[in-house]
Amino acid sequence: MNRTLVEELNNKLGEIAKVQGWVQRIRKLGKIAFIILRDRSGSVQCVVNTKNIDINGLKLESVVEITGKVALEKNIEIQLISLDIISEVEENIPIEINKDKIQANLDTVLNNRVLSLRHKTINSVFKIEACLAEAFEEFLIEHDFTQIFTPKIVAGGAEGGTEVFELKYFEQKAYLAQSPQFYKQMMVGAGYERVFEIGHVYRAEEHNTNRHLNEYVSLDFEMAFIEDENNIIDIETELLKSMIEKVKSKCQKELEILAAELPEIKDKIPSMQLPEAIKILRDVYGKDDLVKDIDPEGERLISKYVKDKYNSDFVFLTHYSAEKRPMYTMPTGDGLTHSFDLIFRGVEITTGGQRIHSYEMLKRNMEVKGLNPEDFQDYLQVFKYGMPPHGGLAIGLERLTAQLLGLKNIREAALFPRDRERITP
Amino acid sequence: MNRTLVEELNNKLGEIAKVQGWVQRIRKLGKIAFIILRDRSGSVQCVVNTKNIDINGLKLESVVEITGKVALEKNIEIQLISLDIISEVEENIPIEINKDKIQANLDTVLNNRVLSLRHKTINSVFKIEACLAEAFEEFLIEHDFTQIFTPKIVAGGAEGGTEVFELKYFEQKAYLAQSPQFYKQMMVGAGYERVFEIGHVYRAEEHNTNRHLNEYVSLDFEMAFIEDENNIIDIETELLKSMIEKVKSKCQKELEILAAELPEIKDKIPSMQLPEAIKILRDVYGKDDLVKDIDPEGERLISKYVKDKYNSDFVFLTHYSAEKRPMYTMPTGDGLTHSFDLIFRGVEITTGGQRIHSYEMLKRNMEVKGLNPEDFQDYLQVFKYGMPPHGGLAIGLERLTAQLLGLKNIREAALFPRDRERITP
Repeated sequence: MNRTLVEELNNKLGEIAKVQGWVQRIRKLGKIAFIILRDRSGSVQCVVNTKNIDINGLKLESVVEITGKVALEKNIEIQLISLDIISEVEENIPIEINKDKIQANLDTVLNNRVLSLRHKTINSVFKIEACLAEAFEEFLIEHDFTQIFTPKIVAGGAEGGTEVFELKYFEQKAYLAQSPQFYKQMMVGAGYERVFEIGHVYRAEEHNTNRHLNEYVSLDFEMAFIEDENNIIDIETELLKSMIEKVKSKCQKELEILAAELPEIKDKIPSMQLPEAIKILRDVYGKDDLVKDIDPEGERLISKYVKDKYNSDFVFLTHYSAEKRPMYTMPTGDGLTHSFDLIFRGVEITTGGQRIHSYEMLKRNMEVKGLNPEDFQDYLQVFKYGMPPHGGLAIGLERLTAQLLGLKNIREAALFPRDRERITP
Repeated sequence: MNRTLVEELNNKLGEIAKVQGWVQRIRKLGKIAFIILRDRSGSVQCVVNTKNIDINGLKLESVVEITGKVALEKNIEIQLISLDIISEVEENIPIEINKDKIQANLDTVLNNRVLSLRHKTINSVFKIEACLAEAFEEFLIEHDFTQIFTPKIVAGGAEGGTEVFELKYFEQKAYLAQSPQFYKQMMVGAGYERVFEIGHVYRAEEHNTNRHLNEYVSLDFEMAFIEDENNIIDIETELLKSMIEKVKSKCQKELEILAAELPEIKDKIPSMQLPEAIKILRDVYGKDDLVKDIDPEGERLISKYVKDKYNSDFVFLTHYSAEKRPMYTMPTGDGLTHSFDLIFRGVEITTGGQRIHSYEMLKRNMEVKGLNPEDFQDYLQVFKYGMPPHGGLAIGLERLTAQLLGLKNIREAALFPRDRERITP
């Protein structure tokens, strides 16, 4: 007999079916016992007559095969005919995973990652994360972007600023890429014009916060022949609509489990120049410590402001100061840049903008930033040979997932997070 | 006026259109000149009356915007009205990329990667590679697999054998993952049952061959509740059919440019037990140096044998010796294993099989292999808590692409290859 998934049992009412999965719960009630069996698609109650079948010694989380008659009582259930243990549990499981909530702190949850992932709420997070990645890819392929895979082992150090992990590469020193920035721009110049990448990036940042990981998945795209950053903003707006739409339609069950409320995006996401945002923060909230840049508290407040005023969970902040942006950022000419961040429910989830495409301007800007153009030869060279106007962005997948689902710590949106201390499991 | 892509010009016959792209070729013929303009979708001839428009000084590979009337002569062409330079070429390009073939050796091609990627044959390779990745993902999502992103920074060393890159991770030592093997198995045990990952893997192998990279993209999947390795073989057969079908339908133009001949997969791919293959190699080809394993020459010969006898470009070799397979490989009990390789046109492109799911068996097998179970605690622990029977495989994306397109060196299928010496560009 073929296996039936739990979610397909409703097609087999009255028939004998075989299910396979984990023993999630056992409840004994006199001569009757109830086993909740869980597979990747859901869980089902199996009713056992203990006079006929002995389930003493059956352990929680064992992998079993059950055959029985599919019946509809209050819910669909299986009237158990036979039970075989496929894979035994060798010792008692260290955390309880069959209650509504896991009663353990995040460290314990992460130390017992594989078990905790069996819990339906935690499990659902990563179904939704997978769906977001799928939707990102699908939308961009539809819009004629080419998927690329660029190296994470790189010769050069940082773009300027952030710390990088160093690596012994045979006789050479190498580093882990902190972003695919240079490579995606190079691929635009290689004639692909529109490229995207879903891949790991690495930040050797010392701080250990609720919203940083030292290894995370970056959703990147870059595109040529734009007018300015507004083309990127427009595409991101459509992209996010499409991603949220996909999660809504494909992950209904998971959204319910997580009691997650997805944001709505109207035609346009409100947009505000950073100097204006800084002024509002000062005037409305009395926050007067911001000069030319915004901090996490400012992001939270401006997000609240926009939510109250425009009922939007999202806000684009634009025109960041040239001083505060990387050397490849296109300047406006008055000290600001054609760049933006997207703030979502108080947290920045995207950085993007138009890039410099002129060789001379880029070289000059490196010097202005105190960088040596010699250190960026492979990157810089490309700009000598006909680089179209272009721009792009990066979205942190774990951060987007965490914000979307209201998770308090970004580690909850990373399967096996890497932070200041943690490199296991 | 909006930009029209070259491939869309046929919808604009007789109209004025604006195109943007690179100047691929310039040919002067008295008062007439021909400019070939190339964008991401193709190239088109633009006819210039040099009495009206001066194109002296126009450099190859400049980025330009051209408006003109779309006309159908022998092919579609643009009768140029205006030409604007969007982005200038700063110095002469170091390699010729507008001939049928690039006349440069692979090292020069890779040193000038971005320019060489503008050449239509090289460009096409990576459109097809992207399509293969897309099709892999699409097929598996359709078959209820969940995409996962597992860490590449890992605490433990190797699975046993292969060299790993070491990394300074703050105060700790860490390594770059040589495969997502442990993590994808853990995710099966985490209840997802069916998972896949598209991600980089790292091999610190000293040798510098035509078919190895030190960083490459691995297409991995793993699934639960299988009978044995034949379930994996069956899924891979369907998966490859689907991937080839997708390339055929989506990349017709690129296949023509590359004069690539895609293989046909009949219902089943021929399958042969390794001991039988070794016997054939001895009896038919006089190759008598193989004991319990096969080498690259053997793979080439058995591939030829199968091609001649069964007219198949693919052959599954199964039942590899337990001695030669990693410790997680499910043994058959007679010294062989439930594992397989897929050989495609003489080269191994997949390794897969059923894995051990019993804690005790896995621990014992580690010891048999001379490994210390203590070193694999995070992985091993999972097997204590109900691990279903499972198996999976890995396909090297660059190797598959190279074999599919008849490329002689795997570096030709890597955008920015990393090998024994190369970490730039």
